[in-house]
Amino acid sequence: MPLSRFKRLKQVVEDNTTQSGKIFDYSVQILILISIVSLTLETLPNLEPETYKLLYAIDLFCISLFTIEYLLRVLVAENKIKYVTSFYGVIDLLAILPFILPTKVDLRILRSFRVLRVFRAQHLTRYSRALTKFRIAFGLIKEEIVLFLIITFILIYISATGIYYFEHAAQPELFSSIFHSLWWAVVTLTTVGYGDIYPITTGGRVFTFFMLTIGVGVVAVPAGLVATSLIKAGRIMEAREKSEDEN
Amino acid sequence: MPLSRFKRLKQVVEDNTTQSGKIFDYSVQILILISIVSLTLETLPNLEPETYKLLYAIDLFCISLFTIEYLLRVLVAENKIKYVTSFYGVIDLLAILPFILPTKVDLRILRSFRVLRVFRAQHLTRYSRALTKFRIAFGLIKEEIVLFLIITFILIYISATGIYYFEHAAQPELFSSIFHSLWWAVVTLTTVGYGDIYPITTGGRVFTFFMLTIGVGVVAVPAGLVATSLIKAGRIMEAREKSEDEN
Amino acid sequence: MPLSRFKRLKQVVEDNTTQSGKIFDYSVQILILISIVSLTLETLPNLEPETYKLLYAIDLFCISLFTIEYLLRVLVAENKIKYVTSFYGVIDLLAILPFILPTKVDLRILRSFRVLRVFRAQHLTRYSRALTKFRIAFGLIKEEIVLFLIITFILIYISATGIYYFEHAAQPELFSSIFHSLWWAVVTLTTVGYGDIYPITTGGRVFTFFMLTIGVGVVAVPAGLVATSLIKAGRIMEAREKSEDEN
Amino acid sequence: MPLSRFKRLKQVVEDNTTQSGKIFDYSVQILILISIVSLTLETLPNLEPETYKLLYAIDLFCISLFTIEYLLRVLVAENKIKYVTSFYGVIDLLAILPFILPTKVDLRILRSFRVLRVFRAQHLTRYSRALTKFRIAFGLIKEEIVLFLIITFILIYISATGIYYFEHAAQPELFSSIFHSLWWAVVTLTTVGYGDIYPITTGGRVFTFFMLTIGVGVVAVPAGLVATSLIKAGRIMEAREKSEDEN
Repeated sequence: MPLSRFKRLKQVVEDNTTQSGKIFDYSVQILILISIVSLTLETLPNLEPETYKLLYAIDLFCISLFTIEYLLRVLVAENKIKYVTSFYGVIDLLAILPFILPTKVDLRILRSFRVLRVFRAQHLTRYSRALTKFRIAFGLIKEEIVLFLIITFILIYISATGIYYFEHAAQPELFSSIFHSLWWAVVTLTTVGYGDIYPITTGGRVFTFFMLTIGVGVVAVPAGLVATSLIKAGRIMEAREKSEDEN
Repeated sequence: MPLSRFKRLKQVVEDNTTQSGKIFDYSVQILILISIVSLTLETLPNLEPETYKLLYAIDLFCISLFTIEYLLRVLVAENKIKYVTSFYGVIDLLAILPFILPTKVDLRILRSFRVLRVFRAQHLTRYSRALTKFRIAFGLIKEEIVLFLIITFILIYISATGIYYFEHAAQPELFSSIFHSLWWAVVTLTTVGYGDIYPITTGGRVFTFFMLTIGVGVVAVPAGLVATSLIKAGRIMEAREKSEDEN
Repeated sequence: MPLSRFKRLKQVVEDNTTQSGKIFDYSVQILILISIVSLTLETLPNLEPETYKLLYAIDLFCISLFTIEYLLRVLVAENKIKYVTSFYGVIDLLAILPFILPTKVDLRILRSFRVLRVFRAQHLTRYSRALTKFRIAFGLIKEEIVLFLIITFILIYISATGIYYFEHAAQPELFSSIFHSLWWAVVTLTTVGYGDIYPITTGGRVFTFFMLTIGVGVVAVPAGLVATSLIKAGRIMEAREKSEDEN
Repeated sequence: MPLSRFKRLKQVVEDNTTQSGKIFDYSVQILILISIVSLTLETLPNLEPETYKLLYAIDLFCISLFTIEYLLRVLVAENKIKYVTSFYGVIDLLAILPFILPTKVDLRILRSFRVLRVFRAQHLTRYSRALTKFRIAFGLIKEEIVLFLIITFILIYISATGIYYFEHAAQPELFSSIFHSLWWAVVTLTTVGYGDIYPITTGGRVFTFFMLTIGVGVVAVPAGLVATSLIKAGRIMEAREKSEDEN
């Protein structure tokens, strides 16, 4: 393949600012959408065998094209190893794995990996200002998020242990162990409250009240963190854009 | 119609700073309120036929006046096409459509459009400082909101696919397809938690815990976005008011 | 009554910086607490007649003292009309009304007014820095709060009307009118989700999804508003304290 | 024991910057994790007697080591009383109490104290930047948090009393007293909404709507508070680090 052709192919696959690059990018996006819809429809119960066959054919067609796309991306990448091990490289590979691997491996489990294909939709906004802002904001509070998760896990565990001692005697079926109580703690502290499991003793209810009072405060922390880091991220981006304008 | 009369009519219909304009505006507001109340009461079960007839008559009366109001607004508008295609122009038309269209078309579905009439109540605060602030703040984060919605949709789809693979075998009736699981994902990630559908397998519950941990963080993003954009909007408005004072 | 005695009484009742004033204030606080506890206990089912009589006696005793306290406060107030019509003046009166009014009026309904007595507990923090900050912050966003409430009401009404048209045919018992659907809208958009009423049609569920997406954004607005106004209130207070220090 | 050995022991136990200190710290962390897991597994129903015996043995082993650790910490502490009465000192003691106390005391209740051991996991992040930031932020709004809790308690009590008067006649079993209604108020205002108790009368539902409108606003306050105090805490830390760099 002459160099000029290779360069042209590279432009189509990687550069989404040219017209042919945009067409390539949008085609891939539409294919992803079609494959997600067909995968979702396949799970519908009481499908006609013909419909199922059609959906399966669409699915195979999409994955074939994704495989070609993956090979093209590896081909044109300047640093092939960097692309293969990058976030998008791994997702691209996971999306086609059930197609490449021998069919003896159980396809049902592998299929669930396909859902990661939806992250490809981020390509559309890959270079947008807003995503960059979110990434900077997220990077600024990485440490705080980890600490927040640790505090949340401790709070959930204490809640589960506490409610176990309060409710185990009254509801041995539902609060049968601390493991079962963990489900209650998660559903309650996130304020989902399905209603499948809840305290009925006075002690358990007073305990729930105290844990929820703390929990509402803890849930307020991420909102505060995001607000402060978004302000900072906005300033960092403005400073960057200024220095770019000056250069 | 002489020009002075037309000018006077224009003032009454469009300018709500004069006394006659205010009376016109408040009359329309009260009519909207009456029509909403009568529409709501009409849906009550076990209504006496006389009551229903009365409510229907009130409804017809209100829509007749709305039709006249719409024609007046078109008449006095300097740029008629601009008004008809504007946000308020479309709402004004939708509110009277079931009255203008021939009765052969099913009225029940068209009626639901009437509810948009309530947006007319915004007229009262149309020029208020707070609404302007909200609009500026909203305009500043349009891009971020779209990105947030895309991330939310992806998160909901991944949650639905994941829970389908975990719960389908245990609860084939409830989690019968990814479409049915989407309902679970919406109700859970918004923390509504009706309790009509929830995971019962350990895998499904652990998966729910992880999706909720991410979900609570994602729900915190709008609060942070609104806070930062309101601060910016406040500064923009102060700067504007200053420059207006100086002129 | 000689003037010096009147002055001393005024100090005891109104000035809670002196020792006797503090004793008076704490005594009233303790009485309020006792009366709330006794009112709460009175509602317990299966009470012994003697216990009920004791609680009723405690209740009467507290209200008698509150009546004396109210008369004292009116007596020592410099501007009697201002006190009687003030927020705390009205609450103080409401707390003793069931005692003053003739017993022929149904006491059960009047009793519910007593709960407002708990606002007296704010006396403890009446002059605290934090409360002042909250009040300034609240004053700064009064307009925005009203606008937010209007938008919320419109959103709830649209949700109720929409779900009525989607669910009425499928669940005529639960979604029997727009009024009944309003209850669903309130419970869903606040993410409480009791599970007593929820959509079962696909249309109703898709509609719920869209309303919740908007609703989560709307719920984020108060958090953002409070954050921005608290920052401003903090600056206003710092500026005030500085100018006070300089004087 | 010669002084140099004592110094070395002190370094191992208290100083987690040296290698031996790190090993000691991580060993304790792993022991805590093992003891939590074994305590959680012990509560599982239908355990084989051998498994239960093994878990109990692991538990005893961990507590023995915790007792030695506690004695070592007391031994090397410069101010022994300060350590024993400190937050971590009390938690360390509570973790081993069921082991030290005679077995005649009911062990089941004492066991629940063990869960506080998980706070030891904070040791890992004890000196981290993020935790310091959280502590400064928390210290800045201590007063506001107390005021917020008082307002929340008043709101919950008013909600409980109000719903009692609205719903007691219609649902005497569920809303049997203000105490029982308090459970409804907690579950509703935190938007958990299990669905075990909810209003069915129109009056009760309208009342719920108003309390929830206020409640959503009140829940927004902590997010706002945290956001503002995190901004301030960030500035304080930057100023501190600057002055440290200059020294």
